[in-house]
Amino acid sequence: MNSQTPHRVLNFSAGPSAIPLPVLQKAQAEFLDYKNTGMSIMELSHRSETFEAIIQKAEDDLRELLEIPSNYKVIFMQGGGTGEFAATHLNLMLSKSIVEKQRKLSEANPGQNKTLKCGYIVSGIWSKKGHQECKRLGGNAHVIVDSKESLGQSGYYDLPPVSSWDLPKPEETAYVYYCDNETIGGFEMKSDSIYPHIDPSVPIVCDMSSNILTRKVDISKFGIIYAGAQKNLGPSGLTIVIVRDDLLERKDSINNIPSVLDYKYFVDEGPMPHTPPTFGIYICGLVFEYVKQLGGIPTMEEMDRKKADLIYNFIDSHSNYFTNPISPSYRSRMNVVFILNNKSLEKKLIEEAKDAGIVEIKGHRSVGGFRASLYNAITVDNVQALVDFLSAFCEKHF
Amino acid sequence: MNSQTPHRVLNFSAGPSAIPLPVLQKAQAEFLDYKNTGMSIMELSHRSETFEAIIQKAEDDLRELLEIPSNYKVIFMQGGGTGEFAATHLNLMLSKSIVEKQRKLSEANPGQNKTLKCGYIVSGIWSKKGHQECKRLGGNAHVIVDSKESLGQSGYYDLPPVSSWDLPKPEETAYVYYCDNETIGGFEMKSDSIYPHIDPSVPIVCDMSSNILTRKVDISKFGIIYAGAQKNLGPSGLTIVIVRDDLLERKDSINNIPSVLDYKYFVDEGPMPHTPPTFGIYICGLVFEYVKQLGGIPTMEEMDRKKADLIYNFIDSHSNYFTNPISPSYRSRMNVVFILNNKSLEKKLIEEAKDAGIVEIKGHRSVGGFRASLYNAITVDNVQALVDFLSAFCEKHF
Repeated sequence: MNSQTPHRVLNFSAGPSAIPLPVLQKAQAEFLDYKNTGMSIMELSHRSETFEAIIQKAEDDLRELLEIPSNYKVIFMQGGGTGEFAATHLNLMLSKSIVEKQRKLSEANPGQNKTLKCGYIVSGIWSKKGHQECKRLGGNAHVIVDSKESLGQSGYYDLPPVSSWDLPKPEETAYVYYCDNETIGGFEMKSDSIYPHIDPSVPIVCDMSSNILTRKVDISKFGIIYAGAQKNLGPSGLTIVIVRDDLLERKDSINNIPSVLDYKYFVDEGPMPHTPPTFGIYICGLVFEYVKQLGGIPTMEEMDRKKADLIYNFIDSHSNYFTNPISPSYRSRMNVVFILNNKSLEKKLIEEAKDAGIVEIKGHRSVGGFRASLYNAITVDNVQALVDFLSAFCEKHF
Repeated sequence: MNSQTPHRVLNFSAGPSAIPLPVLQKAQAEFLDYKNTGMSIMELSHRSETFEAIIQKAEDDLRELLEIPSNYKVIFMQGGGTGEFAATHLNLMLSKSIVEKQRKLSEANPGQNKTLKCGYIVSGIWSKKGHQECKRLGGNAHVIVDSKESLGQSGYYDLPPVSSWDLPKPEETAYVYYCDNETIGGFEMKSDSIYPHIDPSVPIVCDMSSNILTRKVDISKFGIIYAGAQKNLGPSGLTIVIVRDDLLERKDSINNIPSVLDYKYFVDEGPMPHTPPTFGIYICGLVFEYVKQLGGIPTMEEMDRKKADLIYNFIDSHSNYFTNPISPSYRSRMNVVFILNNKSLEKKLIEEAKDAGIVEIKGHRSVGGFRASLYNAITVDNVQALVDFLSAFCEKHF
């Protein structure tokens, strides 16, 4: 093995994405022999005391970092956001309180086959996919607002006023779903964008895949929060779900949904009713420890603010060359999208960035342009290096 | 990092389980910088050319090793065996040919609500779980044979004669499901235990989680083969599915099942319609390369036969001390279960094994006793070391 300083680039990938170097170094050092067990983490039985301690500590640290109330369960699952599009819907539709609400709705409207609406706030491609999966599974998928259509814009750039939303009555709503940060579009909700407008009796489902662990969140406002690990937490293949326990209560123990998507299966027989992605849980645990050492959420929030300010200030002060299309209130601190006004230089920008050791700044294939993802593993210095590069690029080519 | 020879034990875990040391060493060496990309594998975008090459090569090598015919698709999924209990059933019930068979059955039996039977050969705890999941999802789950009940034994020790099976007629059968190797019970089918008895028009679903890549298999006899990676292939969190492509044809493009369990979603938008477990795919790819270097399936099959003979011969020649309850024809080459006749020495055996650097030989909590799992990462020498230890234990304590 090479014991020199490793060759490392500045990796602004949207996910899977950069992992803090100290975490990688620790994992590398104990890769063949975890804590004198004589085994790699990957080789440890998930039923071993050693691994049980790892998953327990990961949960404890996550609870501490996010201040998760005790009436919320934490579940380590597989399947990513796409899995949760299905799981959130399937589980909620089995919830005793929602089944009961459906019964009342049917009774109040006899012979009308009226079903509860599953309300989706569509602010980008991921929330749209959530809505599609609900429809696919036969849900009464309802668009509360589609910001692109509602505002007649060419992309998801702003959130229309609440007065324009099609919010069904609470007694006709199963749940409200939204995505806190749209990774592709670079659109991030403000912390109070949604919940003040939703009746507290309606559970809110929130996809926090790309901004979990980056700002203080009042978990108690939510029914379900989930996040794929591959952005702020660790490697792909692990999904973290935080669910309010009353939503797991069911009538007549009905559980006719696939076990691997059933929250109750994980809670009742958990935390490992089937073999979990052990290596991913271990890496996430190391990331949680690392974030705690740095000072927890307040530190990350401050750092993420600085990083975002750095690059957005640069873009705004170079508006002849670069454009960010998102309404300033909703610019993502995590995924900074920008367009090079002179498109003919796009390829050159990618190439010269690569030469400067800066990679994965190409925008998602569905929106084009550029995107720099600034998850927790990216430091203020990393963003400064990106800004310096972009600045030099402008000087050179304009 | 410690550059000395690492401390390693003999790990007979049933899964997650031992991974070949050369594979671990390669992964460790390139853990911070994969092939001069300046990134860890875990940090690589799954949309990068680098990762696309990794998943492509993994598929190519697997196809070569298993001689997978071109009319079979290979899918890298998440969710393990538990996910596939659901996925196999849900996908097959959408298959055009099975939907058509159901239509014919209904037409031939008007007013009887007759539904196709999903036939399960229950030879242990895992196939039983498959049957349960089918029932859970509303399937007409039918037990073709439950070897424990049929033979009136206290465990799954033998396979009753085909004449005693309750095999429904082909035109009334959606599919036949079985588990090729029962990890918990230590029961392995012979290569021709099942398919010669099933009408070729009925697709056979086979769970090969714990013996894939250990013997030659005629893939063309199967409709679907799947395997969780965490036994013979790599880390947990990755599932490999091999499916005959005609079974993916659907009537009216109906796809009302969760995307993450939908084979067609992976094939139509694949190979990565959503973020896959990239690190797991990479490790499996290294294992495939390693197996190829050793000589492929013929080498593994010969080695696995030697390993199994070594330990079963030892058990049989020490029948005063040890018992294996499985009918000799169906003794698993992968999971060797044995009982210490003098139960009072069980704890001592575990302790002394640990002192000798031998771990994870305790039987599954549901069956007790001992179990040594001899997957491909375990060498003949490793098994010899186990046998030597057991032999010394006998001499010392009896």
